[in-house]
Amino acid sequence: MQVKVRVPATSANLGPGFDVAGLAVTLYNTFVFELLDEGLDIRGCPVQFCNEDNMTYQAFKEGAKACGLEFNGLRIDCSGDVPYTRGLGSSSTCIVAGIVGAFAFKDKYDARQEILELATRIEGHPDNVAPAIFGGLTVSVMNETVTTLNIPVKHDYRFVALIPPFTLSTEKARSVLPQQINRSDAIANVAHLALMVASLINGYDDGLKLGFKDRLHQPYRGHLIQGFDEIMTILEHDEKVLGCYLSGAGPTIMAVISGDDLKGVVRIKAELGHLLDDWQVEKLELDMRGYTCDYE
Amino acid sequence: MQVKVRVPATSANLGPGFDVAGLAVTLYNTFVFELLDEGLDIRGCPVQFCNEDNMTYQAFKEGAKACGLEFNGLRIDCSGDVPYTRGLGSSSTCIVAGIVGAFAFKDKYDARQEILELATRIEGHPDNVAPAIFGGLTVSVMNETVTTLNIPVKHDYRFVALIPPFTLSTEKARSVLPQQINRSDAIANVAHLALMVASLINGYDDGLKLGFKDRLHQPYRGHLIQGFDEIMTILEHDEKVLGCYLSGAGPTIMAVISGDDLKGVVRIKAELGHLLDDWQVEKLELDMRGYTCDYE
Repeated sequence: MQVKVRVPATSANLGPGFDVAGLAVTLYNTFVFELLDEGLDIRGCPVQFCNEDNMTYQAFKEGAKACGLEFNGLRIDCSGDVPYTRGLGSSSTCIVAGIVGAFAFKDKYDARQEILELATRIEGHPDNVAPAIFGGLTVSVMNETVTTLNIPVKHDYRFVALIPPFTLSTEKARSVLPQQINRSDAIANVAHLALMVASLINGYDDGLKLGFKDRLHQPYRGHLIQGFDEIMTILEHDEKVLGCYLSGAGPTIMAVISGDDLKGVVRIKAELGHLLDDWQVEKLELDMRGYTCDYE
Repeated sequence: MQVKVRVPATSANLGPGFDVAGLAVTLYNTFVFELLDEGLDIRGCPVQFCNEDNMTYQAFKEGAKACGLEFNGLRIDCSGDVPYTRGLGSSSTCIVAGIVGAFAFKDKYDARQEILELATRIEGHPDNVAPAIFGGLTVSVMNETVTTLNIPVKHDYRFVALIPPFTLSTEKARSVLPQQINRSDAIANVAHLALMVASLINGYDDGLKLGFKDRLHQPYRGHLIQGFDEIMTILEHDEKVLGCYLSGAGPTIMAVISGDDLKGVVRIKAELGHLLDDWQVEKLELDMRGYTCDYE
């Protein structure tokens, strides 16, 4: 028997929702787990990850410990489209898949809250694992436990991911954030977050452009990403781009457009021109399911 | 013909929603307007307000100018239960009523967006006038225009207003706020706001206690209000108090309880004991209508 786990990419630090709001998108990694009599056999990912340090394997071990699964050997077959280290939650797909894979061998594949708690402990924060588990747009707060709630999004949006050819480590992106900020910036972020959420649940698209604006991390991280300011300025002047933001700790930039803006990608590519040389552009939808699990 | 305008009290700076989130409650001021051949006749309020500087009269004049109403004299009869200068939006009731009163003589009593714009210009901010106009829980952002959106609140809450016998001027309450704050406090407020809104729309009462916590204004204003820290600590230890916050710029403290917590007020009074000596305690509901207007 094999267990197949599919996990969506995720976009955290949603606009002004630094450290709290994220969403799942329709770009997936898939992991097939099979118990073996002995050994570890990892396939489908770069050779430097095919060893005991593999994140999915580590998470599977943690998951096995948590649900009382004993196993001697394991095969993991990885495939998928979520790019590495681009601010789209690729590591969260590995962590969530590993735990769900182990839980599935004990028929606990749907213990989402328990899986959330464990995945958050492994990842260190719930920003990406929460939407990867529950789908949709989530708000997550760590206290003694992890609380994740969904925000119902009224309209049908598309998320155009502009994915650079270079990476940006979360550690470096964190190191540039100042300890002190202006109170006015904090108040602006609070206001924008309130506007973003209220606009999304009311289907008030005119509130999104301001609602997606952030002053807590993007102004400090922009210079780490070549072309960032130019790209954001052009996107903000595009009347059909409802909002734009830095995905996670970057470097991917996300533009939000309406589902009926069929030519959005063509237009954005034309507007940005050479700024997108070698960049990958993906038009995504909100994933509403979170991870899925099947037995084969 | 008389125009009768009833306006709800409002509670701004809702928890972490400093400057952006507010709500209307079931405590009202009522104003009856009647056009006269000449003169100004203000009744029902303290004598020092019965003159041309009267806020309701000033707002009526602005409203009349905006809607093209010409008048020679005016009678205003005021009554109601919204306490003055306590952080419950009494001045907003005057401003909104004045504008609505004038607009009503031109049959424009329901031009709520226009009334919002004018009231915000007079008051200087939309925090209180927005919920007073639209009712419910509102998010308001000033840009070129004023955007106000409602947040649908799922459960049936009660708002227990603890109203001190002393006043606190908004000006003084503003003067104690620092220009620089810790980034961690800003991030906490953003997270709490997201949690508060997500909890309210999902009916997740367990998220409200943390969700209502603020770090942007309450920590600086607490010492201006006798007993504030003690009262907040006791309320936070009461498991049936779902959340508590400083209403507006204070000094009123608001405790949120469930509609089925019938003994909430009795319990809160007992817990707080002498801390509430001479304080007024009002158990209120969310007002869902905003102002009302009738012809008599």
